Amino acid sequence: MVKIAVDMMGGDDAPQIVLEAVEKAINDFEDLEILLFGDEAKYTLNHPRITFRHTSEMITMEDEPVRAIKRKKDSSMVRMAEAVKNDEAEGCVSAGNTGALMSAGLFVVGRLPGVARPALVATIPSVSGKGTVLLDLGANADAKAEHLYQNAILGHVYAKKLRGIENPKVALLNIGTEAQKGNNLTKAAYKQMAETDQFNFVGNIEAKSILEDEADVIVTDGFTGNMILKNLEGVAKSFGKVIKQNILSSAKNKLAALVLKKDMKAIAKQMDYSEYGGSVLLGLDGVVVKAHGSSNAKAFYSAIRQAKIACETQIVDNMREMVGDADE
Amino acid sequence: MVKIAVDMMGGDDAPQIVLEAVEKAINDFEDLEILLFGDEAKYTLNHPRITFRHTSEMITMEDEPVRAIKRKKDSSMVRMAEAVKNDEAEGCVSAGNTGALMSAGLFVVGRLPGVARPALVATIPSVSGKGTVLLDLGANADAKAEHLYQNAILGHVYAKKLRGIENPKVALLNIGTEAQKGNNLTKAAYKQMAETDQFNFVGNIEAKSILEDEADVIVTDGFTGNMILKNLEGVAKSFGKVIKQNILSSAKNKLAALVLKKDMKAIAKQMDYSEYGGSVLLGLDGVVVKAHGSSNAKAFYSAIRQAKIACETQIVDNMREMVGDADE
Repeated sequence: MVKIAVDMMGGDDAPQIVLEAVEKAINDFEDLEILLFGDEAKYTLNHPRITFRHTSEMITMEDEPVRAIKRKKDSSMVRMAEAVKNDEAEGCVSAGNTGALMSAGLFVVGRLPGVARPALVATIPSVSGKGTVLLDLGANADAKAEHLYQNAILGHVYAKKLRGIENPKVALLNIGTEAQKGNNLTKAAYKQMAETDQFNFVGNIEAKSILEDEADVIVTDGFTGNMILKNLEGVAKSFGKVIKQNILSSAKNKLAALVLKKDMKAIAKQMDYSEYGGSVLLGLDGVVVKAHGSSNAKAFYSAIRQAKIACETQIVDNMREMVGDADE
Repeated sequence: MVKIAVDMMGGDDAPQIVLEAVEKAINDFEDLEILLFGDEAKYTLNHPRITFRHTSEMITMEDEPVRAIKRKKDSSMVRMAEAVKNDEAEGCVSAGNTGALMSAGLFVVGRLPGVARPALVATIPSVSGKGTVLLDLGANADAKAEHLYQNAILGHVYAKKLRGIENPKVALLNIGTEAQKGNNLTKAAYKQMAETDQFNFVGNIEAKSILEDEADVIVTDGFTGNMILKNLEGVAKSFGKVIKQNILSSAKNKLAALVLKKDMKAIAKQMDYSEYGGSVLLGLDGVVVKAHGSSNAKAFYSAIRQAKIACETQIVDNMREMVGDADE
């Protein structure tokens, strides 16, 4: 049995999509228990494996993250994180304010011993459809080389346990493939990674190859990772616009476009990273999954499943061990 | 009359494409003189406004930039830069080793007084087709806030003079639009830019909006700029692959794709940043234009025209004045 705490109040379309997702997950997985936090006036489910707890406050997208976590003690997000802290649940899922969830992870759940800075990880789409693990996506915008090294360890365990990749190829995101390329940060991180046998370091990777399946794990700092993630997101949309502008200007093309429409949708789906579940905050003493703020029920369901697998494969214990080894 | 020095030996397809481009440019522009440096055995042109000078050495893509510039004194690239330094030419163009050209700019042409670090700038494609000025693309991978501020000035002058945009909107590339977002670098740069009246600062811009025409000039550090440029390049190619894989799998789609082929090519062209000319090294005491290493004759011709316009619009003098003002 795996017990997951869920924030019913976070996300653009909460609580509806959360309730739908929880209902589907609890029916699909017989070994799942859910501890659900939110406003009881909006709670509509009834299931022996769902425990509901009323909370009187809510953290919004506008809240300043650290302050919200420190002051809104009876919010669904803080209570959910406390459940993980107190071992009432092994993991938790929220689609709420990302910064607040990172703060809840840091200040309520707490870091693993030896982890300097937690990192946000997600699987981004790749050309083969397999997907690539990318971290940090924004937890630590001012990283040092040792943080990148630690991100590599966290990413290694994540790819191995959660994605089932034996000996994952770990690459460092950089502005050139040669060892001496980069800024001071990546040059220093490269040196540390090149000397380790804790993971399979395959060298630098450039941003033009991110979707090309050259590595299983791509490591970067939170500033660059967030930048790249948003760029991928935006460029896909911008290209879509340009294609529409150009192609739909003639009737002949409209017909052709109609024929291709279904396939274009399939492509958009393949390249949509929300299809790959939520992002996970690594380096904490518990599983914390961030579902996208704009999640629909299916995406939130994926995030719950992701949290469940993370608990079952004991990624937290595995990370605790590996980071401990690195510290020695 | 504008006199441009040209490196005949740089680039994947040199000297052929350089010779073709020089011939076309000299015929198209009656007020252009070219000072051409390279191997005389390969020089095939003959025109009263072309002065040819033989050089005995060549800088290759494999050369270590600084060492190459310091040791290969009789290379076409060093001689070309010296021509700018000695006022024999107002500007120069090379498709050779980017790092070496940056070193030649720095050590031979020299910086403008008050410029701490030169920046590499290019116009990247945008949805409207107008294009956006992005800098720094990799000259200064470890930037400080004052370098970003200076990049903003250089970008402002470039957009105004070379692209003819009155009062260009200057934005700071960041991981959030709010003033307090970012890493230590962007937070500090934001503060400096928000207080100035030297240029029209419009705030932060996220990587997802880069192609959306929200700003005329986007300022970032050389590490992030290079990352984003390569990501744009790579993502376009990766999307192309996915579209091909998915769409060309059925005969019906093949027909539809055939109808769209011409338009898809037009789109690829619109989004291809090499169509917008070369990149320019700003902050130097002369115009230094880098044509893409894989330039064809047309792209190299665009780079020559770009250098010519930069000289005519006196961007160097304009930058000298504005940077001087900022220093006071």
